[in-house]
Amino acid sequence: MKRRLLLVSNSTLHGSGYLDHCQQHICSFFGKDVKRVLFVPYALHDRDAYTKTARDKFKTLGGGNTFRLLKSLYDNNVVTEIRKRVMEDGVPYMGSSAGTNVATVSISTTNDMPIVFPPTFSAIGLVPFNINPHYLDPDPSSRHMGETREQRITQYHEEPNTPSVLGLREGSMLLVEGNKATLLGTTKARLFTSGKPAVEFDPGSDLSFLLTDAP
Amino acid sequence: MKRRLLLVSNSTLHGSGYLDHCQQHICSFFGKDVKRVLFVPYALHDRDAYTKTARDKFKTLGGGNTFRLLKSLYDNNVVTEIRKRVMEDGVPYMGSSAGTNVATVSISTTNDMPIVFPPTFSAIGLVPFNINPHYLDPDPSSRHMGETREQRITQYHEEPNTPSVLGLREGSMLLVEGNKATLLGTTKARLFTSGKPAVEFDPGSDLSFLLTDAP
Repeated sequence: MKRRLLLVSNSTLHGSGYLDHCQQHICSFFGKDVKRVLFVPYALHDRDAYTKTARDKFKTLGGGNTFRLLKSLYDNNVVTEIRKRVMEDGVPYMGSSAGTNVATVSISTTNDMPIVFPPTFSAIGLVPFNINPHYLDPDPSSRHMGETREQRITQYHEEPNTPSVLGLREGSMLLVEGNKATLLGTTKARLFTSGKPAVEFDPGSDLSFLLTDAP
Repeated sequence: MKRRLLLVSNSTLHGSGYLDHCQQHICSFFGKDVKRVLFVPYALHDRDAYTKTARDKFKTLGGGNTFRLLKSLYDNNVVTEIRKRVMEDGVPYMGSSAGTNVATVSISTTNDMPIVFPPTFSAIGLVPFNINPHYLDPDPSSRHMGETREQRITQYHEEPNTPSVLGLREGSMLLVEGNKATLLGTTKARLFTSGKPAVEFDPGSDLSFLLTDAP
């Protein structure tokens, strides 16, 4: 298993610039020898502008709308190819927000609006669980009555055979190297598993147990 | 055009009980002569409990997960029948939250997670536009970097041929009688149209112009 993944919750953390919060991890993840990065701009409407932004500053990698990103990956027949290159050839994969969602089993735990209809919610499947990026704790002072993020994930787990969901709060990311997974960043992550109580994990935690189920 | 619709943003308003905020409108909408209401419990996992709740207190009509609701409507082959009964036979339709989303052109502007995969995002089409229930204004004090609701709707409007989206804040609802649409409730609504600035409407506003385009 050659996979090397860096799955980031969010591109921008409040009070700092694009990808500042994970810049050090990005540098050590790709290393000095990487000269070319394939940037997938499908998640935003204006792909040229998005690519230019990424090229200029190496910043908003993989953000945008998850449905748009996944649909374009299928429309362009690159889902299987990306999976093969990452899982078999060891090409490093980095995603943030939407780019993190599409790396998992399915996009069923995205926060985005379903603005386009992909052929399936199944995603690239680089890990055998789902992620909820930008994970938000309930705000006890809120008067808004929409479902909390945890309630939404609980609804997902009412469906049969749904995988665990790792809630990555803003400022956190998951580093996967082969069969080892480590939580990085400055915030805790919350793990939801169907039929079990949610569990909190501190930055630095070894989450390799999440990789033991085949996708 | 015989349609009569009451499309509510949310079942519960902060500080009051289920459907309290629209109880008066529900009573006058259905009238004294209605003895039976068909309740569609598809949006929540435990349908028996949900139906019992609705039967007991006539409350959480149509809330839950929009994807689950739409998929079950298609699985049970009732989308066309509901449209026919409402549009041609004048059967009143009331929805709240998920039940409001599925009454429109598509569920592409729901806030829910895509926990199940419906055969299409196209919905019952009782009105020729979309609604975003539980509409939320951006919170200037928030440090969360996820897209605002308005940014998400703007992404939707980057796609071709997307209809207007009426953002119904909690506490607001839309009453449709034939070709007349009126905003009811205690909060303003925000209308998003592709390529145009967003517009605010006060409670009591006549929104019939939204009905002029055929679905």
